[in-house]
Amino acid sequence: MAVYTDVSFEDLEALLAGYDIGEPRMFKGIAEGVENSNFLLQTDRGSFILTLYEKRVHAGDLPFFLGLLEHLAQRGVQCPLPVRSRSGDVSMILNGRPGAILTFLEGVSFRKPDVIHCAAAGAALADLHIAGEGFAIARPNALGLAGWQPLADATAERADDVERGLAKAIQEALSHLKANWPSGLPNGVIHADLFPDNVLFMGHQISGLIDFYFACNDALAYDLAVMLNAWCFETDGSYNITKGQRLIGAYNERRKLGTDEIAALPVLARGAALRFLLTRLYDWLNPDPQALVRPKDPREYSKRLRFHMQTQSAKEYGA
Amino acid sequence: MAVYTDVSFEDLEALLAGYDIGEPRMFKGIAEGVENSNFLLQTDRGSFILTLYEKRVHAGDLPFFLGLLEHLAQRGVQCPLPVRSRSGDVSMILNGRPGAILTFLEGVSFRKPDVIHCAAAGAALADLHIAGEGFAIARPNALGLAGWQPLADATAERADDVERGLAKAIQEALSHLKANWPSGLPNGVIHADLFPDNVLFMGHQISGLIDFYFACNDALAYDLAVMLNAWCFETDGSYNITKGQRLIGAYNERRKLGTDEIAALPVLARGAALRFLLTRLYDWLNPDPQALVRPKDPREYSKRLRFHMQTQSAKEYGA
Repeated sequence: MAVYTDVSFEDLEALLAGYDIGEPRMFKGIAEGVENSNFLLQTDRGSFILTLYEKRVHAGDLPFFLGLLEHLAQRGVQCPLPVRSRSGDVSMILNGRPGAILTFLEGVSFRKPDVIHCAAAGAALADLHIAGEGFAIARPNALGLAGWQPLADATAERADDVERGLAKAIQEALSHLKANWPSGLPNGVIHADLFPDNVLFMGHQISGLIDFYFACNDALAYDLAVMLNAWCFETDGSYNITKGQRLIGAYNERRKLGTDEIAALPVLARGAALRFLLTRLYDWLNPDPQALVRPKDPREYSKRLRFHMQTQSAKEYGA
Repeated sequence: MAVYTDVSFEDLEALLAGYDIGEPRMFKGIAEGVENSNFLLQTDRGSFILTLYEKRVHAGDLPFFLGLLEHLAQRGVQCPLPVRSRSGDVSMILNGRPGAILTFLEGVSFRKPDVIHCAAAGAALADLHIAGEGFAIARPNALGLAGWQPLADATAERADDVERGLAKAIQEALSHLKANWPSGLPNGVIHADLFPDNVLFMGHQISGLIDFYFACNDALAYDLAVMLNAWCFETDGSYNITKGQRLIGAYNERRKLGTDEIAALPVLARGAALRFLLTRLYDWLNPDPQALVRPKDPREYSKRLRFHMQTQSAKEYGA
């Protein structure tokens, strides 16, 4: 949640002159997304999100992110759609920041999704992977295996201030992952951050997937491993295998998982847990004084990593 | 702007069971108000603000604040109206905080209001003062003259770190105000914080007045003096007398100002400038690490105070 850049109504009014989306009725900074400044805009023609991309999202990546949303929306994925300006631009500059206006999706996200939500989300991930096929631009996963060592190095010295033994646990997991990271798995566009807060529901139906700013090309099954971490653990740290079964099962019904993908789930789940542990740990140790957001506790993910380090097979996840 | 208290959709769902306002369609923390946690809620029946009152708003004051909104709304003021629960309660407790659900008002606020907006806002203030008559509960102004000395004391030591000579300027203004503060002016319910961000417009028409959490009983003309400070200075620090003329003139058309009120404007304007200087200075020197808000720069108000300290009569404000 963050609003880093201030946008006055006067700034907005000048901007909207370049768009054909009606007269503003409401304009508010919202506490959403850790990477960008987000504003909810309602006009007489509908609801929109104005996003200004702060330092973590590079302007050079916008053609990928915004192009991907257009590609996915054309293929039926319920995701925000960039609104083009009168001159046809998909992005713009406002108060010195690159930005975009996107359609707003109704719906609410669950803090504690239940089994039905897990199944719906698993199916939505498979649909997303299928819809992503044929998207022309590629973007490597900056937070994949190669990105973890620098984060481990940057946090090693103070990791044990957060949790005793954490630096060693990270180093061991990283060595294990370097030796065992799978290659040759089916690749494609992944969301890479499909946490419950990025999935909107109306009742039990998914009304939208949001926040594609970690999307990239990587192993599709890694995206599933991210979701097992984010959706299937209970507040007490236990893994709910029923949720895992339903999530993986619903995914598999839409997009059949290969035996190689299933076999790789434990190591992918370790990698996904380490990725979120490292970025949370880094943000915890280096809080941004400008941020209007409290960093998330990294220990949630050290617990999950420990769980994954002792699993033997995909069966333990419900596959 | 702040969201201090976290509210999950599940928390909201449980809360809404006690209200008759429909099914949630959207629920988002918004970056608004420095005193409370605010959430925008849209249901199939309308839009609402869920506010949780943080430490600066005392639960004991809620009957005043919420009762005042009901009183004003009944008298035609466009202000948020508290939604009563099925059991008739105007407030509730959520996540350990007192809270209320209020109707949401459409409209946008201007960062740099022009002359037309100043006139509309002046008229709205007069209407508000008239509508406030007869409200049964009283609340003293905690940030009136008696409240300034403690703030001056609490900031004296480090005031000069913010601006050279500031501690002395504050002390001089305070001595002057103690000796010259008017008494016996027409009293009533005042908003006490009617800044441009608390006045919503649709086009040139006011669509709502919001954020009544400093409302109290005090001299009505003091409320006007707050607005002269908040609406009539330009970004470069200069006083725009045309804006002052229109604001005071529009007020006076709805509620005739007494000669005593007009004569008191310079000293009231000094007091209002000192009040915002002191609270901003205090917040600047004592930032709340929990706050998702950057404190406002107090120097804007030291400049205004210096302006007011050299005025001789209400004519200089456009009266």
